[in-house]
Amino acid sequence: MDNKFPGKDISLSDLKDKIPLVTKKGRKIVDVNGVIFGGEKIPIFAGPNMVESQELIIEAAIKLKKIGVDFLRGGAYKPLTFPYRSEKYNETGSLGLNWLLDAKKASGIQIITEAMSEDHLEAVAEVADIIQIGSRNMQNFPFLVKVARTKKPIMLKRHYGSSLRDWMGAAEYILLEGNDNLILCERGVSAPHTHRNTSRFLLDLQIIPALKEISELPIVTDPSHATFWRNWVEPMSLASVAAGADGVMVEVHPDPENAAVDPLQPIDYNAFSRLFEKMSKVAKAINRRLY
Amino acid sequence: MDNKFPGKDISLSDLKDKIPLVTKKGRKIVDVNGVIFGGEKIPIFAGPNMVESQELIIEAAIKLKKIGVDFLRGGAYKPLTFPYRSEKYNETGSLGLNWLLDAKKASGIQIITEAMSEDHLEAVAEVADIIQIGSRNMQNFPFLVKVARTKKPIMLKRHYGSSLRDWMGAAEYILLEGNDNLILCERGVSAPHTHRNTSRFLLDLQIIPALKEISELPIVTDPSHATFWRNWVEPMSLASVAAGADGVMVEVHPDPENAAVDPLQPIDYNAFSRLFEKMSKVAKAINRRLY
Amino acid sequence: MDNKFPGKDISLSDLKDKIPLVTKKGRKIVDVNGVIFGGEKIPIFAGPNMVESQELIIEAAIKLKKIGVDFLRGGAYKPLTFPYRSEKYNETGSLGLNWLLDAKKASGIQIITEAMSEDHLEAVAEVADIIQIGSRNMQNFPFLVKVARTKKPIMLKRHYGSSLRDWMGAAEYILLEGNDNLILCERGVSAPHTHRNTSRFLLDLQIIPALKEISELPIVTDPSHATFWRNWVEPMSLASVAAGADGVMVEVHPDPENAAVDPLQPIDYNAFSRLFEKMSKVAKAINRRLY
Amino acid sequence: MDNKFPGKDISLSDLKDKIPLVTKKGRKIVDVNGVIFGGEKIPIFAGPNMVESQELIIEAAIKLKKIGVDFLRGGAYKPLTFPYRSEKYNETGSLGLNWLLDAKKASGIQIITEAMSEDHLEAVAEVADIIQIGSRNMQNFPFLVKVARTKKPIMLKRHYGSSLRDWMGAAEYILLEGNDNLILCERGVSAPHTHRNTSRFLLDLQIIPALKEISELPIVTDPSHATFWRNWVEPMSLASVAAGADGVMVEVHPDPENAAVDPLQPIDYNAFSRLFEKMSKVAKAINRRLY
Repeated sequence: MDNKFPGKDISLSDLKDKIPLVTKKGRKIVDVNGVIFGGEKIPIFAGPNMVESQELIIEAAIKLKKIGVDFLRGGAYKPLTFPYRSEKYNETGSLGLNWLLDAKKASGIQIITEAMSEDHLEAVAEVADIIQIGSRNMQNFPFLVKVARTKKPIMLKRHYGSSLRDWMGAAEYILLEGNDNLILCERGVSAPHTHRNTSRFLLDLQIIPALKEISELPIVTDPSHATFWRNWVEPMSLASVAAGADGVMVEVHPDPENAAVDPLQPIDYNAFSRLFEKMSKVAKAINRRLY
Repeated sequence: MDNKFPGKDISLSDLKDKIPLVTKKGRKIVDVNGVIFGGEKIPIFAGPNMVESQELIIEAAIKLKKIGVDFLRGGAYKPLTFPYRSEKYNETGSLGLNWLLDAKKASGIQIITEAMSEDHLEAVAEVADIIQIGSRNMQNFPFLVKVARTKKPIMLKRHYGSSLRDWMGAAEYILLEGNDNLILCERGVSAPHTHRNTSRFLLDLQIIPALKEISELPIVTDPSHATFWRNWVEPMSLASVAAGADGVMVEVHPDPENAAVDPLQPIDYNAFSRLFEKMSKVAKAINRRLY
Repeated sequence: MDNKFPGKDISLSDLKDKIPLVTKKGRKIVDVNGVIFGGEKIPIFAGPNMVESQELIIEAAIKLKKIGVDFLRGGAYKPLTFPYRSEKYNETGSLGLNWLLDAKKASGIQIITEAMSEDHLEAVAEVADIIQIGSRNMQNFPFLVKVARTKKPIMLKRHYGSSLRDWMGAAEYILLEGNDNLILCERGVSAPHTHRNTSRFLLDLQIIPALKEISELPIVTDPSHATFWRNWVEPMSLASVAAGADGVMVEVHPDPENAAVDPLQPIDYNAFSRLFEKMSKVAKAINRRLY
Repeated sequence: MDNKFPGKDISLSDLKDKIPLVTKKGRKIVDVNGVIFGGEKIPIFAGPNMVESQELIIEAAIKLKKIGVDFLRGGAYKPLTFPYRSEKYNETGSLGLNWLLDAKKASGIQIITEAMSEDHLEAVAEVADIIQIGSRNMQNFPFLVKVARTKKPIMLKRHYGSSLRDWMGAAEYILLEGNDNLILCERGVSAPHTHRNTSRFLLDLQIIPALKEISELPIVTDPSHATFWRNWVEPMSLASVAAGADGVMVEVHPDPENAAVDPLQPIDYNAFSRLFEKMSKVAKAINRRLY
């Protein structure tokens, strides 16, 4: 039996020299125009999957802001598994960005939206208060560097097949560019159990204490994309807060069943308003707060 | 491309005729000598991994009962991955059962303990208020039937590699014997992400709403065995309550680092007492209670 | 960052003291009534999933023996995910055992069949030349010990959610009883990728060199149960031989589409006869042989 | 129980309209300057992980060409999990490309190398006979489109966390650009079983028949990156050929233990030469050939 037989995995403790910035103690707080991540208040992200129309996104911004949401989410550019539908949406990406700007002006809400490629990165950076890097780009290292160099706050989503080690390697690429305004987002992993009679992905809440043990970077969860099923969004959002998440992102749509993309996962304004109150109560139970 | 190409998975909706008892509406409430599962109150299970000594288990019973624990957990018989250590423990299983009985008499607490084989099933049934079936026996169907026939309440743990479908197939075997006092327990699944720089298993909290969508059977979580790491037990216990768990089982040991088995996972009495109060607060936030 | 942060996995090299018999060098050859496992010749197992009728199983024994098969497979007792169908089959298990005996007498072929519980272990041991322990019982340690004590050759299937470490822990239980006639069988693992538009399980051929690096125990593969899809059985059988498998088990049925259980996976006699010739050619290419 | 309960997965048969080009029958043969993919001859790729020096890569080209290798592999640009080492290598990427060109001129061998970003895509396209898209970029859709538009033959590696469905969605993006010279490459998936005492990834050979059932696209395997362990490369290469792979890629280095990257996985020239002969024999056994 060889001493070097594989399986002797390197633990995160052994990685300190590979991710010195991720594991640095006493990091600067992430502050996005006054909204603090990692403090007592838990920022909330909500909005539709896609920026479907100007009307929809302005209405969403106003309604969600009123409920207490900190960031309006909405995709102008969006990676889709198959090309035919993707083309249709992404050709009108710049229109979507304009509508997000309209929504911001109409409501005062901050904006998070995804940059998918260098081609429109500058345009996204002008509109977004936080630039989202989607899970499929998590290890697109040249792109991470370019997004980091915009100096905008970044939300880095975990790939659905990625370990904490790989995710933190990607985070280090961003921090190394001197961009400290980094927020992480757990959005569900694929697992043997998820694809048989449960859901597409499995929200990995255990990653929250695992991350906090090695890093001070704030972590948000996205129960909508993880569960892919609106009935499970509430329990998994409440569990996120209780597990110590530093933010929660929820997909909200005025007419969920007719959402342009992934119509099984959004909830409507009323359901979200109730969820917000419930998350607020759970937050108080652990000495945090939503507003 | 053949129409029957694999991958067209059967959904749980299609399984109704295969698990009619699991999916039956209006099931009888699970009541273990006055402790109700699935109601407003969330029963708590706590205790050491193994019944190490008479003294330890009596002390644990008295202390935990006082904190508010409903069921004392402790293994007299226990399946261990490698045979050498296993032999040592399981040869003294009957002694462990006696000590559990002593602990029950001394404190009035109810007992949950595992039956691992038909050989000692009768003896376990005499001591246990709930018989635990471990994850490794989840699909040992002849054994499930025998445990069901003892007429004792049963806790069926999910195998770490099992889907909801397979778990519910096993549950149906028990219900079919006319034993309705069935409680389920999620104890962590293995996933690609769990074994690289995080933990051994991943506590699957999403299984809670998934189960509740198809069944009224109560479900408990075991964050200690899932995380295998004491620092993560608190956040995952709080998240379990927030996700809708009908019970939480926590490994507690007076001297965690010197526990006979799995010394990385138990917490001590003081830590547990604080956790109990925190779970209680989270329970109240969702209109449930611990006591 | 704590030094003991989980993820520092124990490698098999570190396990030597936990599985000394599995890793022992110079083990005795496994010889089942003259059929050697681990030598130049690769024994082949074939037959239907279930022993459906006396006629079917006698015909199968004669035809398969003629093609060159060493062991007739066929379930008399069989664990099934849901109880209703299971009951039907397992009540007639003793009849199935008798028919297997008839088939053996009529053809001279050796028999492998599964023991699922202590209840019928003695009866199975009387008929079987090799007793199969199914994947769902892989970590049913008290049962492993009892099967080992029958002194019959044993085939231990890997659980679909099990690591090499856990599998070898189970193997050690059998070897520790002094039963050295142990054959391992890889039958597919569940993985995130298997359940979306591919198959139920994934045949893990990499486990073959992994095992051979630490143990001299012979290993067989079961491409039929792994793929669950007859079209894939041939390529995965040929790949098994090329990867170094010490045996291959194939599900064969005279009328595959009307097989009593899992009708998507068996192949018929003609297809099997062609596969046998192809496996024979691949075996020769790597200096082994089928007959 | 809702009829739309998740888990009812869409089968590939249902996807025909989403991947019409992937599933098209009678596709044009992939012909890379006279080397045909999907025919009787199985093209072989070999070379070091990184283009470490001019001397090394020229020597490799000459030696491997002589053994019978069709394509020299070698990374000039390479995505690495952690940024510090990555910087070092990728800054000298253009030098690596020049050396690959030198190797090509010195030996006449064809070149495959990875393009990691748009920044150097044009430079890579000038040197490479096949442009490799790495697994981490598999769903970087804007980049796929740009690589497709170079009109060069492409090898699209499967992400280690990706299903066949997701992989084929990505392939469709490339085909939709009118680039039909597409070769797929399976390089190991991550699974619960891979990270405990076996290897980093699991070579999924079952994907070969799964793919062939729905598509005529040629598929290559990369046993070196999958196993991450040189001892297992030979059995998994032979198994790849037997399973029907249309090509095999092997990491070869003159001094494996001192390779610049991943020193556990390459084999040396002698070992590769022996492996080539063995693959050749297995190929003949299934009526294919290596040369």
